[in-house]
Amino acid sequence: MPFTTRITVRFGDCDPAGLVYYPTLFHYCHVAMEEFFAARCGAEYARLVSAERLGFPTVNARAEFFEPFVYGDAAEIDVWVSRVGRTSVTFEYRLRRAADGRPCASATLVQVCMNLDERRAVPVPEYLRLAFESGAE
Amino acid sequence: MPFTTRITVRFGDCDPAGLVYYPTLFHYCHVAMEEFFAARCGAEYARLVSAERLGFPTVNARAEFFEPFVYGDAAEIDVWVSRVGRTSVTFEYRLRRAADGRPCASATLVQVCMNLDERRAVPVPEYLRLAFESGAE
Amino acid sequence: MPFTTRITVRFGDCDPAGLVYYPTLFHYCHVAMEEFFAARCGAEYARLVSAERLGFPTVNARAEFFEPFVYGDAAEIDVWVSRVGRTSVTFEYRLRRAADGRPCASATLVQVCMNLDERRAVPVPEYLRLAFESGAE
Amino acid sequence: MPFTTRITVRFGDCDPAGLVYYPTLFHYCHVAMEEFFAARCGAEYARLVSAERLGFPTVNARAEFFEPFVYGDAAEIDVWVSRVGRTSVTFEYRLRRAADGRPCASATLVQVCMNLDERRAVPVPEYLRLAFESGAE
Repeated sequence: MPFTTRITVRFGDCDPAGLVYYPTLFHYCHVAMEEFFAARCGAEYARLVSAERLGFPTVNARAEFFEPFVYGDAAEIDVWVSRVGRTSVTFEYRLRRAADGRPCASATLVQVCMNLDERRAVPVPEYLRLAFESGAE
Repeated sequence: MPFTTRITVRFGDCDPAGLVYYPTLFHYCHVAMEEFFAARCGAEYARLVSAERLGFPTVNARAEFFEPFVYGDAAEIDVWVSRVGRTSVTFEYRLRRAADGRPCASATLVQVCMNLDERRAVPVPEYLRLAFESGAE
Repeated sequence: MPFTTRITVRFGDCDPAGLVYYPTLFHYCHVAMEEFFAARCGAEYARLVSAERLGFPTVNARAEFFEPFVYGDAAEIDVWVSRVGRTSVTFEYRLRRAADGRPCASATLVQVCMNLDERRAVPVPEYLRLAFESGAE
Repeated sequence: MPFTTRITVRFGDCDPAGLVYYPTLFHYCHVAMEEFFAARCGAEYARLVSAERLGFPTVNARAEFFEPFVYGDAAEIDVWVSRVGRTSVTFEYRLRRAADGRPCASATLVQVCMNLDERRAVPVPEYLRLAFESGAE
């Protein structure tokens, strides 16, 4: 079952067209991923970064934006893992408007498990692999 | 011939891993597009938005990130239009590290010509279509 | 009694020093103000902006930063109004680390009530004045 | 003589009111300071952070915003140091609209010299002190 989190669109997230500036939608995905780690992986992403010096930078992104989010909206975001490789993880994101459930965006992000000190790909730790796979659809 | 612009990586663009936070790379693409409009289209994007109430929000994004940008880098970004539809434009972006020319990222963004007051797709104005096509590879 | 809201520090909020990039602390204050409007003023700030075309841009800012917020922290923010003028409002913000209650920052922001279409100061609407004064210490 | 740098207002810097979101003006000050370090201090701020593990986080901020920057504007920013203490430096910023020279904002930021690994204040290195004082008005 996908994990779901909610993000309120903020004034500063929106551009002069009144829409959420689209790079900010990727920030929303990252925030959703941070919540996913806390809720499903037994690991605060913050602790992963500071204590284990692991991160999951994005190496490939595909996204579609069906309808804009505007100021006043809240986004409901589903997050799940669709594939776990040796050193990479594919996260899926579905974003919909909270008020009416209309789909607004989807994204598939391939993120690589990186040792932040050496800045090279390393195998996904086993406890994260298990958590990712149990959260997969 | 693609248009090229240069963006200096800023302290505030980088995350605790020391890398440019990846949503910010899409912001860099948007900045490069704004420079492209000024240089190649005879139209400041700002004037387009405020006077003509036209914008080009992104509806589809594909991107690859080969190597991270870090604080201290500058990005050189090529921008060109690979396809002009009736109401949409496909922009191509290639980002490389200025110091050594190494490719760091590429992105293909489909952007729709939108009337910002009515928030609906409208045909790409003829003078922009001509500018886009002359800038195409 | 001040209104209190909580903001989780996000990966993308932090800089290569691992601290919340200080301009982002002002963003946190703005988010707290948006929550204050919703909770105490009977007015979503979003509705104010879009329907009444009113905003409260900042004209004067004073802030102190005692201790940095780092990734992994959450901020608890008190917000209240200390003074209501004819066209301006003084907001007070106190930010502390949620985990241990340590004060991290305080800010006093003078914000002017602006008609966003004409971009000029206008009197604070009476229903907001009442709400601001009842929330004052 | 103050150091002057120029920043183009970007689409993503502006809010639904069409104005530069005010926390972003502090980001502009930080960018101007980074340029100041490169031009006047013989030290890229990036190198300072990564090689010497020194930073200058802000501990006190005072700012006035006289006129908003809007999308389409460019900001000209003067930066200079008005005071150098043992472990702190006071930076002054004056922001004006490039097109007509109108003053838009000013800021006085007290920034402390910090060892980023130990997160404590340390004396300002002598070569920086000399550079700061020669750039003072």
